[in-house]
Amino acid sequence: MRIAELSSRSGVAVPTIKYYLRERLLPPGELTSPNQASYGEQHLRRLRLIRALVDLGQVPIAQVREVLAAVDAETMPLHDRVGAVHRAVTPRPQLTASDAERAVAAAEVAALVESRGWAVDPDAPALATLVETIAVFRSLGQDHLVVPLDQYAAAVERFTELEVAAAASRHDPDQLAESVVIGTVLGQTLIAALRLLAQENASARLLGEATTRPGPAEPG
Amino acid sequence: MRIAELSSRSGVAVPTIKYYLRERLLPPGELTSPNQASYGEQHLRRLRLIRALVDLGQVPIAQVREVLAAVDAETMPLHDRVGAVHRAVTPRPQLTASDAERAVAAAEVAALVESRGWAVDPDAPALATLVETIAVFRSLGQDHLVVPLDQYAAAVERFTELEVAAAASRHDPDQLAESVVIGTVLGQTLIAALRLLAQENASARLLGEATTRPGPAEPG
Repeated sequence: MRIAELSSRSGVAVPTIKYYLRERLLPPGELTSPNQASYGEQHLRRLRLIRALVDLGQVPIAQVREVLAAVDAETMPLHDRVGAVHRAVTPRPQLTASDAERAVAAAEVAALVESRGWAVDPDAPALATLVETIAVFRSLGQDHLVVPLDQYAAAVERFTELEVAAAASRHDPDQLAESVVIGTVLGQTLIAALRLLAQENASARLLGEATTRPGPAEPG
Repeated sequence: MRIAELSSRSGVAVPTIKYYLRERLLPPGELTSPNQASYGEQHLRRLRLIRALVDLGQVPIAQVREVLAAVDAETMPLHDRVGAVHRAVTPRPQLTASDAERAVAAAEVAALVESRGWAVDPDAPALATLVETIAVFRSLGQDHLVVPLDQYAAAVERFTELEVAAAASRHDPDQLAESVVIGTVLGQTLIAALRLLAQENASARLLGEATTRPGPAEPG
């Protein structure tokens, strides 16, 4: 198909497609004349993946390139591809807590990783983010919010077991890799949306009752 | 304290503090002379909160203003403050799925909300994000990743119950409001970091074994 059809079928504007081609996020089409290229279904599929990462995953373009490289790295062991995606989608947190607060949080996170038996790279960016987040909760006087850390971790672990089992239902290694990569990025959006909904529900039940004064009964 | 001390104690540069003052994220100091102002502990506290929202929560400045307004809205019922924070921190998703895919996902999400008995506003932005995310998983050929949707929701619900119970341990209404608001925003960072760590662990155990060929035994 020509670029105009690729645009109409994907819903992505032609200048945006050209930008992705220049940035090599999208492989070039097959030249059918000196200034005419033809695109296939794999371009359409790749374009949809890019839009999903950018629009829903809110992944910056530079990191999209790294995520796509992990999808395409057929000879790389799957666990290493997951690591590459993690590094791409986890920003190094800016350090705002004090060194002392960070040291306390780091010890707590080390104890958590130990008690849950998690095999994680000591340089994993998510580890630094977790440490900084806990330290910042404390620096804002919100110590009580991080008391149930181990229980938080257990609930998230359950979520992740479900995700990984779902991805692992694909047996073809390349399909599995694509599933793992897409699941890693978009699963973040999924868990965030589910959390806000569950929270709104909990808030309606617990906080609504706790803080609003009884008003006149409303008609059913 | 003067602005220089506010800067050194908070770690936030003076021009950035002046920007927050101009943008009214930070209330003005008390004038001690025509061009000299004095700042108090409440400024330091507010500055730390702004940095936490911006740096860790990755909340854009315009939305930080809305979050702070919710913290300060002492006469607003707590559940409404939570709603205001949710609207501030949930971007409306760009629509990338097809209308047909979105309709299927919307029916599925409606069934989920019904089966879990969630009391959520039909206009909640997280609902639109969840629908779009599920539709996009499908459009990328990843239907299998959203099969355990109800179980995902149960795991996230457990996480949220813990969060809300922790926040509710604060009994003073204004402290409770601050806890709920900070918890809503930074809890997002916390759950994301925990998920990446749990995922790295699951990946090391399951995918590492599943996809790498057995090598020579390593010394213990």
